[in-house]
Amino acid sequence: MKRFFFFLFVMISLAMGAQGYRAPSAPTPDIAKDGSVTFKVKAAHADTVRLIIDTRVDTLMKRQGNETWAITLRDLEPDLYMYYFIVDGMKVLDNENAHVLRDVKNVMNTFVLDPRGDCPMAVHDVPHGEVRAVWYDSPTLGTKRRMMVYLPAGYEQSRQRYPVFYLLHGSGGDETVWLEQGRAAQVLDNLIAGGKAEPMIVVMPNGNVDEQAAASMSELGNVQPTFAHKHWMDGTFEQSFNDIMQWVDKNYRTRSGKRYRAIGGLSMGGYHSLYISANQPEDFAYVGLFSPAISRMDQGKCKIYDDLETKLKAQFRQRPKLYWMGIGKDDFLYKDNAEFRKLLDKNHLRYTYHESGAGHEWANWRDYLVIFTQLIFKN
Amino acid sequence: MKRFFFFLFVMISLAMGAQGYRAPSAPTPDIAKDGSVTFKVKAAHADTVRLIIDTRVDTLMKRQGNETWAITLRDLEPDLYMYYFIVDGMKVLDNENAHVLRDVKNVMNTFVLDPRGDCPMAVHDVPHGEVRAVWYDSPTLGTKRRMMVYLPAGYEQSRQRYPVFYLLHGSGGDETVWLEQGRAAQVLDNLIAGGKAEPMIVVMPNGNVDEQAAASMSELGNVQPTFAHKHWMDGTFEQSFNDIMQWVDKNYRTRSGKRYRAIGGLSMGGYHSLYISANQPEDFAYVGLFSPAISRMDQGKCKIYDDLETKLKAQFRQRPKLYWMGIGKDDFLYKDNAEFRKLLDKNHLRYTYHESGAGHEWANWRDYLVIFTQLIFKN
Repeated sequence: MKRFFFFLFVMISLAMGAQGYRAPSAPTPDIAKDGSVTFKVKAAHADTVRLIIDTRVDTLMKRQGNETWAITLRDLEPDLYMYYFIVDGMKVLDNENAHVLRDVKNVMNTFVLDPRGDCPMAVHDVPHGEVRAVWYDSPTLGTKRRMMVYLPAGYEQSRQRYPVFYLLHGSGGDETVWLEQGRAAQVLDNLIAGGKAEPMIVVMPNGNVDEQAAASMSELGNVQPTFAHKHWMDGTFEQSFNDIMQWVDKNYRTRSGKRYRAIGGLSMGGYHSLYISANQPEDFAYVGLFSPAISRMDQGKCKIYDDLETKLKAQFRQRPKLYWMGIGKDDFLYKDNAEFRKLLDKNHLRYTYHESGAGHEWANWRDYLVIFTQLIFKN
Repeated sequence: MKRFFFFLFVMISLAMGAQGYRAPSAPTPDIAKDGSVTFKVKAAHADTVRLIIDTRVDTLMKRQGNETWAITLRDLEPDLYMYYFIVDGMKVLDNENAHVLRDVKNVMNTFVLDPRGDCPMAVHDVPHGEVRAVWYDSPTLGTKRRMMVYLPAGYEQSRQRYPVFYLLHGSGGDETVWLEQGRAAQVLDNLIAGGKAEPMIVVMPNGNVDEQAAASMSELGNVQPTFAHKHWMDGTFEQSFNDIMQWVDKNYRTRSGKRYRAIGGLSMGGYHSLYISANQPEDFAYVGLFSPAISRMDQGKCKIYDDLETKLKAQFRQRPKLYWMGIGKDDFLYKDNAEFRKLLDKNHLRYTYHESGAGHEWANWRDYLVIFTQLIFKN
């Protein structure tokens, strides 16, 4: 029995690491029933401590006793949040919170705020879909590549066929980001269970054709995630997209025909979605552009980008069921998107437009995912 | 074109976060061709900076110029490493390295050291298996639970049936830890591609029956990972194990019969493997005990733990093809394991024993995985 307690002690000491660990007293950060969130960090000798919450909060914390700094925030919306501290100019994570995510290469702590139990980004007691990390063959790129696939609850047990939503990430992202920062599996689980979205397969490929997989799954070992890709929006990804669709149709029980296929994405992924759907109008009845990185820079660079207006007119003649655009009022791409809308308006091409607050950020993209997935495959 | 550069600039600034980011100059940490590894951290006003590498290194770093601290280590073995810095007593991560993993709730940076290109924990250019996060039904526990399943390369394309290795985590771990700290997918990919291991399905359930899933996938939201489970080695997990096996046999193309089934695990998972195989000797021809948390505390607590000696004799009468034990010389469980070996010896029960250096740590468990998976399903 003595040995048992020694064992327990050593196990706990070992895994906590020798440094600075204190037994957890409460979940971190501390979320009260009214949804207020209290952040704490120990920094006895610091002069200033700041709390940064992704793009949303940058505020000074207050000294509380000898070594603790704290702050309570009261008006945060239900959502996923990412945060860290700046202690006298140095970035420090919350050592009491083991949950971390990265945005490109910026690692932050994370929590989901769900005070009313209805946040679609939270895990709820509903049937959960399956998430697969698969490697598909891309003959166009001459390599195997990794992608993530969400299969709705019941897929394995049924013989049913399902519609497919191709969900694309932004520059700096990879095949994992829609599951991690985007909470795609939780959003789909919750919306499908609530009867708000149709059961669907969601395919999340890697849009950086220079890499086979997310940096951590790469042969390059300790290479870092980056924006700096050689083949960045040069048409290569769009040209290789059929490799993905063919692999998906071969390996999953997909429904065939454009009315059972959607494509959407954020920023660079919105740009990819725009051009893939414009070049393959017969393939997608639903298009979602989430703060798309629209610009005019690519004319003449690759035939994928040429003659957009003509292609759009042809695409809309085939009557997409939904052409959806969302953007924040403060997005630095707002003006480019407004110009793109003018182009659509001039040609009487009908789209659905959603203007939100804030800028080019995940809080918007998670919302757009929630909205868009409730509109597709409904008829 | 101007707008394009502005766009690029804003994209990069945004995702890097406002604080402390510097453009990456080289992969971090810096691994030279001879395998030496240089760690650097900026801390202008610090008095002491230490580098901690999991259980293996705790060393002072040296000031280099005005704000940088650095150290080069020359004799690290090829493996996965986890590290962080202590700046004047405060834990700080390497902000130049986006790759992080956690050990229970201690978040650390990580890298794989593979100077010769032959480390089985590294990603190599070989066919990659598929990794699935699935939810199975446990009628015994009355709940759905999450587990991870590795399917070898080619599974989806073949009609072949495969042997199954049930791989169990330790106390403080969860269903994800053998994939993350354990590098199970990379190890299996590499060994199978090299003809050293048989293609096999690897099933990684969650051994903490109090939770449905890893903390980050839990309904409890911001709950923290912990050792403190109510049902901790009380027989509940062992009694519910058939739910897992039945679900796996129903949902995957498994080969039937004990010669196509292995069970193994680390620490608490070794303990689980010992008792599950002793209570179900007809189910497993291969048993792997990796630094198993063997103790005598559980007699009378649950029938699963009673009459071990009798059960072991019955198990060995059924001639397991391999009963494998590995432990480090410095493991705090060494003595308990030595006593268990005496029990086996006394009864002339034949096992394979592997004694390594070091203690109760992942460097050993990854090695044991590499060794054990090359010994199973060979005949």
